[in-house]
Amino acid sequence: MSKTQPISVALFGAGRIGQEHARNLAALPDIQVQVVCDPIIEAAQRAQPLARALEHSANFQDVMKRSDIDAVVICTPTDTHADLIEAAARTGKAIFCEKPIALDLNRTKQALQEVERTRVPFQIGFQRRFDTGYAEAKRRIEKNELGRLDQFRAVGRDPAPPPASYLEKSGGLFIDQAIHDFDLARFLMGEVESVSAWGTVRFLREAAALGDVDTATTLLRFTSGALGVVENSRQAVYGYDIVTEVFGEHGKLLIQAEPKTPLRHYRKEGYRLDHFYFFMDRFGEAFRAEIAAFFAAVREGRAPLPGAHDALASQQVSVAATISFRENRPVKLAELGDS
Amino acid sequence: MSKTQPISVALFGAGRIGQEHARNLAALPDIQVQVVCDPIIEAAQRAQPLARALEHSANFQDVMKRSDIDAVVICTPTDTHADLIEAAARTGKAIFCEKPIALDLNRTKQALQEVERTRVPFQIGFQRRFDTGYAEAKRRIEKNELGRLDQFRAVGRDPAPPPASYLEKSGGLFIDQAIHDFDLARFLMGEVESVSAWGTVRFLREAAALGDVDTATTLLRFTSGALGVVENSRQAVYGYDIVTEVFGEHGKLLIQAEPKTPLRHYRKEGYRLDHFYFFMDRFGEAFRAEIAAFFAAVREGRAPLPGAHDALASQQVSVAATISFRENRPVKLAELGDS
Amino acid sequence: MSKTQPISVALFGAGRIGQEHARNLAALPDIQVQVVCDPIIEAAQRAQPLARALEHSANFQDVMKRSDIDAVVICTPTDTHADLIEAAARTGKAIFCEKPIALDLNRTKQALQEVERTRVPFQIGFQRRFDTGYAEAKRRIEKNELGRLDQFRAVGRDPAPPPASYLEKSGGLFIDQAIHDFDLARFLMGEVESVSAWGTVRFLREAAALGDVDTATTLLRFTSGALGVVENSRQAVYGYDIVTEVFGEHGKLLIQAEPKTPLRHYRKEGYRLDHFYFFMDRFGEAFRAEIAAFFAAVREGRAPLPGAHDALASQQVSVAATISFRENRPVKLAELGDS
Amino acid sequence: MSKTQPISVALFGAGRIGQEHARNLAALPDIQVQVVCDPIIEAAQRAQPLARALEHSANFQDVMKRSDIDAVVICTPTDTHADLIEAAARTGKAIFCEKPIALDLNRTKQALQEVERTRVPFQIGFQRRFDTGYAEAKRRIEKNELGRLDQFRAVGRDPAPPPASYLEKSGGLFIDQAIHDFDLARFLMGEVESVSAWGTVRFLREAAALGDVDTATTLLRFTSGALGVVENSRQAVYGYDIVTEVFGEHGKLLIQAEPKTPLRHYRKEGYRLDHFYFFMDRFGEAFRAEIAAFFAAVREGRAPLPGAHDALASQQVSVAATISFRENRPVKLAELGDS
Repeated sequence: MSKTQPISVALFGAGRIGQEHARNLAALPDIQVQVVCDPIIEAAQRAQPLARALEHSANFQDVMKRSDIDAVVICTPTDTHADLIEAAARTGKAIFCEKPIALDLNRTKQALQEVERTRVPFQIGFQRRFDTGYAEAKRRIEKNELGRLDQFRAVGRDPAPPPASYLEKSGGLFIDQAIHDFDLARFLMGEVESVSAWGTVRFLREAAALGDVDTATTLLRFTSGALGVVENSRQAVYGYDIVTEVFGEHGKLLIQAEPKTPLRHYRKEGYRLDHFYFFMDRFGEAFRAEIAAFFAAVREGRAPLPGAHDALASQQVSVAATISFRENRPVKLAELGDS
Repeated sequence: MSKTQPISVALFGAGRIGQEHARNLAALPDIQVQVVCDPIIEAAQRAQPLARALEHSANFQDVMKRSDIDAVVICTPTDTHADLIEAAARTGKAIFCEKPIALDLNRTKQALQEVERTRVPFQIGFQRRFDTGYAEAKRRIEKNELGRLDQFRAVGRDPAPPPASYLEKSGGLFIDQAIHDFDLARFLMGEVESVSAWGTVRFLREAAALGDVDTATTLLRFTSGALGVVENSRQAVYGYDIVTEVFGEHGKLLIQAEPKTPLRHYRKEGYRLDHFYFFMDRFGEAFRAEIAAFFAAVREGRAPLPGAHDALASQQVSVAATISFRENRPVKLAELGDS
Repeated sequence: MSKTQPISVALFGAGRIGQEHARNLAALPDIQVQVVCDPIIEAAQRAQPLARALEHSANFQDVMKRSDIDAVVICTPTDTHADLIEAAARTGKAIFCEKPIALDLNRTKQALQEVERTRVPFQIGFQRRFDTGYAEAKRRIEKNELGRLDQFRAVGRDPAPPPASYLEKSGGLFIDQAIHDFDLARFLMGEVESVSAWGTVRFLREAAALGDVDTATTLLRFTSGALGVVENSRQAVYGYDIVTEVFGEHGKLLIQAEPKTPLRHYRKEGYRLDHFYFFMDRFGEAFRAEIAAFFAAVREGRAPLPGAHDALASQQVSVAATISFRENRPVKLAELGDS
Repeated sequence: MSKTQPISVALFGAGRIGQEHARNLAALPDIQVQVVCDPIIEAAQRAQPLARALEHSANFQDVMKRSDIDAVVICTPTDTHADLIEAAARTGKAIFCEKPIALDLNRTKQALQEVERTRVPFQIGFQRRFDTGYAEAKRRIEKNELGRLDQFRAVGRDPAPPPASYLEKSGGLFIDQAIHDFDLARFLMGEVESVSAWGTVRFLREAAALGDVDTATTLLRFTSGALGVVENSRQAVYGYDIVTEVFGEHGKLLIQAEPKTPLRHYRKEGYRLDHFYFFMDRFGEAFRAEIAAFFAAVREGRAPLPGAHDALASQQVSVAATISFRENRPVKLAELGDS
């Protein structure tokens, strides 16, 4: 595609996250959303002006077949991701897909093989990597400002648990929620060699019924020999609690965004700062940067990151943690077979 | 104009701030930038795709005459503002204009009289009011969370002084720089009754040559009886230093955004946080919110804020401070005549 | 006195501040409190064990006459300070005295002349200078880490106003409260050339009746040409609010102690930090360092600091501010005559 | 002992920590250090004036036999603690002892049995419990402000590793260093049910030679069902890194003391805050509060805390973690036998 022509994009999925991407796509000067596609045609129609799109459609197949579409942005429910990825790859479209590719590791591998075979540009939606804090941490680590890395810690706590209907299809806390922290661990520290996960149900009966947990603490051992820990909870009344720490030979990086509002309120009871209560509050800017980075890579002919390897490897940590929790033993990633 | 039709906009000025507005306008779903207008046609052309505009033009008059334009966004040099405001008002267009309207107070009044006469929607570009910190502070004050307000303090320091060519046309520190702090004072505390300003030249020879200052501290007395102070400097090596404090009966609000990056770097020398080195870093989101608020008001038939009164009244504080500094005496706003 | 003998001390005044000094004196290994002296003999008796003192007494004159006393610590009511200083100077005792020496500037000068004539070691109780934050700020300024100093700002707000009986004898807000901030201004920035003070009564009727104020903002111009501002209030519901800022060519120092407790409490309403509600909470350690520094200087034959010059010069700023407020005009320190 | 008589104290050990206790004891009004005892008589002599003690001695036995001593403060090397505790218990003296009682768990139990048999007051030196942050956290937990407790995290990192000679006798990282964090875990969360520890050598060859580690991350499961993690390192170039977090149903407490100096230094490179580089900087006040609390309990006839149970139980967590690390498996505290 020419540098002077806008990239023509199809947006799949017009739900909450799809609408967010619609708005972000509209603000990118060098792309044009051709069509917003959602099986619920009213949703597609409503999202069309958000994306400044030219059309809307309810038919995935029709849109995939079109040769005037250069790239797809996939924000549909998880169980459609793998099929859409394969269809887009086969028709030579650049692909941005929200995580995960599939709950099943083999289905994930299969779809990614199609991506590799067809060599289409592919990016997975680990948006935290594009947050200014995480991106800057990465840069400083790459400049060796921390020297040897020794310990990692991430906290990931959501303000409130998802509904039972979501939990059922989520794949469990380690695959649904902790995967973001595992991806940050890999992003900042390198690959994981083994995990040891403890989980428990403290408040969420629905989780217990599904064999899932609402609270977990997971030890990580990296291939570098460094140690790490990830703490998760499905509910934090004080808001969206995302804190990451990298400790090394020459110092420590603490990635933490607070307060939400640049305002301290001094009162009789002490002073108060506001929290983030929603992931889009905390990572709205990262979502914008993520999609801009995808299209910049596509335009410049670079492989977008995080790509197929990251999509798979971060999911493998989640799968290993799930096994570790269930079998109450440390699990090496190597047990899962080749990635 | 109909709720179902996008508002048709002309953007005047395609310089640094104009490009920023261009990008922000492109992201608004319910407006359409019809034309980007700049006497330097190449600048207009370059900004056109940023704004997703349909046309570009070098001719202000032609664009002003068009009846298919509903609203104008004015980002041209200060000395053109008043003329453009008057032309837009006479042709019934909604007006958003960057501050100030004119360096001369009478010219400002004249242009605003045209706005009032024609009753077109008008908003002045005091973007800080749309920062989440300042906006939330305003809400808490309006909810009376602070009770009686007693003291105000604002610091406004730029990372580096503007070039001499800018200084010459700036109207001086009180009118060019401190006006943002004076507007915040009025926004949060109410109207100013008198000022007493001390200024000095510490480092900027060009300022001395112009009878201007690079450093100033200004006392404010509000009509409520409360006291305030505004501290300004043309240079702060550690970045853009904007801090505001409102102290009252039941507490204190401190509006301060730091660090820039949600990252603490712990090192041998202590821990380090990043600063804002550019106003657009600090207030980029506020610029987006400001222009969105303008169009929301236009669409909903409300008078946008800050409007003509604020444009004039904040400038009057600046003028009074300039007189106070020059004559080394307290100056009452009433001396300046009616607003 | 020999380096191997403890310094023999008399403590005058066993009220709140005297008891604090008693405890601090008990912890100093190279001094011995010989006698605690208070006209209320029961108070002297109660404070004796706090100071690990050998005796107590109700008679100032008797104690002053004793040749076995090397040094006096004066914590009595203000109106006795000057007499006690003169008596101690005449009998060759080293003197530590709480501020102020006298409300009247001439009485202050008179007492300090006796100190200078007799060349006894003298230290005035501006304890903030010994706070780790202020002391470190001073060191960095002396090492020229800030380069040219351009602006100063101090806030001094008490949690709650003193009783009317105290107000009557206090000399007014500028002399009683703001003097601590004026002294910090001199400590960190150098001498003051002129002041311009605005004050008002917002909540404290007793202050109005006395011609005093409860709220004030004072401009300072230093002899170096730098500008400053001091903000005071007699009441801050959120606690003891002491913040100081020095702005210079190469950076800015912000001296601010918060939270009081090293604890952040994240709750539904945001996160909360504790405040200081009492000056002894904030400056308890500084009081200990102050008195230790006094005795270290005495033992090593150095002149203690802050000494007679600081006692006088900081009070002169307070007096000038009081005049400026009353006469509604800028006042030069030179108008007050020689110091 | 009478309330009107000071408690007569013997201080055992005049090394670094003994000197600190000496100074703290001198400042307590209701006790009298009778004798400072150290086998190195010069050390005892030097510490005598710090403690304002009446005598010094090199002979532990002689001092233990004296009936005019009410209480002992034990700051000698670890391998003497158990003997001194037993001797003090048998002669009916109240005992404050620095941790640990003995590296060997059985020797610890033996000594504590003597304490329980003789019912003398006993306190172990876990000073962090007396830090204002930890003490306030405990109060808020006891007031149920957090509701159900779900997760715990502690970081304990020292500025620099101890010398090899110390390492050899330390009992290893889990027993020497992590015990403070394990004790905080028990203090704030309740008893530990099982642990799973991963450790590694990253930089300290001497540790490797001893089968010890320099870096460890330990999972905790509490008897309440809550999860926890403790991260330790023998070296943090940015200083003494002590952070503790308690996460519960209604909120989160973060106990963290920074910066060391109440000073922010804004510079071109960002703003800088100081760290604690020494445990006495961070916990100096806690050491004072700890010893004052011990004597307050003794005087009032209450059992001091943390007592014999805490001394043993926190050590048991350390021992279990050591086993878990060595055998690479989760270890239940119950495996260690009765406490």
